[in-house]
Amino acid sequence: MELYVIKIGGNVIDNSENLHHFLKDFSALKGYKILVHGGGKIATDLSHSMGIEPKLVDGRRITDIETLRVVTMVYAGLINKNIVAQLQRYSCNAIGLTGADANLIKATKRPVKDIDYGFVGDLSDTSVDEEKLSTLLKSGIVPVFSAITHDGEGQLLNTNADTIASALAVALSSLYEVSLVYCFEKKGVLLDVDDDLSVLREINTAEFKKLKEDNVIAGGMLPKLHNAFQAIEKGVTEVYIGKSDELQLLGKESFGTRLFA
Amino acid sequence: MELYVIKIGGNVIDNSENLHHFLKDFSALKGYKILVHGGGKIATDLSHSMGIEPKLVDGRRITDIETLRVVTMVYAGLINKNIVAQLQRYSCNAIGLTGADANLIKATKRPVKDIDYGFVGDLSDTSVDEEKLSTLLKSGIVPVFSAITHDGEGQLLNTNADTIASALAVALSSLYEVSLVYCFEKKGVLLDVDDDLSVLREINTAEFKKLKEDNVIAGGMLPKLHNAFQAIEKGVTEVYIGKSDELQLLGKESFGTRLFA
Repeated sequence: MELYVIKIGGNVIDNSENLHHFLKDFSALKGYKILVHGGGKIATDLSHSMGIEPKLVDGRRITDIETLRVVTMVYAGLINKNIVAQLQRYSCNAIGLTGADANLIKATKRPVKDIDYGFVGDLSDTSVDEEKLSTLLKSGIVPVFSAITHDGEGQLLNTNADTIASALAVALSSLYEVSLVYCFEKKGVLLDVDDDLSVLREINTAEFKKLKEDNVIAGGMLPKLHNAFQAIEKGVTEVYIGKSDELQLLGKESFGTRLFA
Repeated sequence: MELYVIKIGGNVIDNSENLHHFLKDFSALKGYKILVHGGGKIATDLSHSMGIEPKLVDGRRITDIETLRVVTMVYAGLINKNIVAQLQRYSCNAIGLTGADANLIKATKRPVKDIDYGFVGDLSDTSVDEEKLSTLLKSGIVPVFSAITHDGEGQLLNTNADTIASALAVALSSLYEVSLVYCFEKKGVLLDVDDDLSVLREINTAEFKKLKEDNVIAGGMLPKLHNAFQAIEKGVTEVYIGKSDELQLLGKESFGTRLFA
């Protein structure tokens, strides 16, 4: 059985037209699917209006208790439930979740070494309860995850949405043929960053090594691809990197860049 | 099969000690159960810190779009997910929900007559999808509802938590023997409002009529009891009205005031 795990970020969430377009296409997508969303500017805006300034240590963002409250409100409340209501409108039977719900994603608070990142949750290979998630999927439910997890001891934690999407995809690859889809602002991996038409249609592991050696891939793209190929190594069938407004092409024509073993 | 539908309000939520005590007892409660929670002072405090003043028309509270955003953040995000994380800590397999999730509670935006209440959702006899809820319950999940519903057209709505608890109890009474439990600040229905020991242990429909005629029941309590007996008339087995910190007595000794047909 096939399963899509699709991640959207700020560039979709912050633009209500983009978001509606995406959610309509997501609803139309056949088969098992999971949506993971990040935060976007709304959390930053809310923090500002509450007089909370972003905490940075050595340039790294810190999730202090005030920030955790804000992201829990914005990610798990405002954004998540509005996405669910929109999906229901399109007859997609969504349920909005955090990792705490049904204990689906249990994280560990990041240990304090040089920097105390605060209430940030890291994931391991056993973080996701894929059996319980599969039960939900098979009952016709479409899980919509915000980027909040918990430690199992009553503490909510802020966790990177890309990491959550990848962990879900890897864990569920023991039960499904998983396609992991990252939506971002470009049409895919570009050979020439200034040319939107220079999308690489496919890259396999060997080609990725070659492209890295030849320094063809732009700096910002490298960690994304590295993480994608790690997920593939751990069992995910394929990873797509593409633009949210082309989601209707997924599974039909070519969507973004397809990465595979 | 027995099912508890338990509602808590501000007096539990606003006091973290009360809340933890309650959630521990709730976790220990055997059998099928659903928790419904209201808002409390946190939403008011957040509105203040964001510079949003409560909108009142003719003394009635109005849910404008700004207020809806705040209650969605606070009820469905902050409060709901913290409750879920606490319950998971006590091995209670909670999932935090709004009415939009899995389309479990579909409401109608209150029609504008003399007053435009804004984004307030009213419930009808067909609002709750009891079959889908029952599937969740039977898979071992404990639903935790915040007081947010939707209209099925993509719009979230603010709905009274007492009303949600009652609608859930009535709808599920076709499948379960439902005990509806309202937690409030007193130990139960008091014969003498100034005497906490004057709790009426039981009231049936006939006795309620008599008590009303004799003007024995304090004014503020009357609508609560009226709604409770309406739920009983519609199929709910019994309604308890009592204090959250005595929940451990529920189903064992006498908890609060028991209302029945």
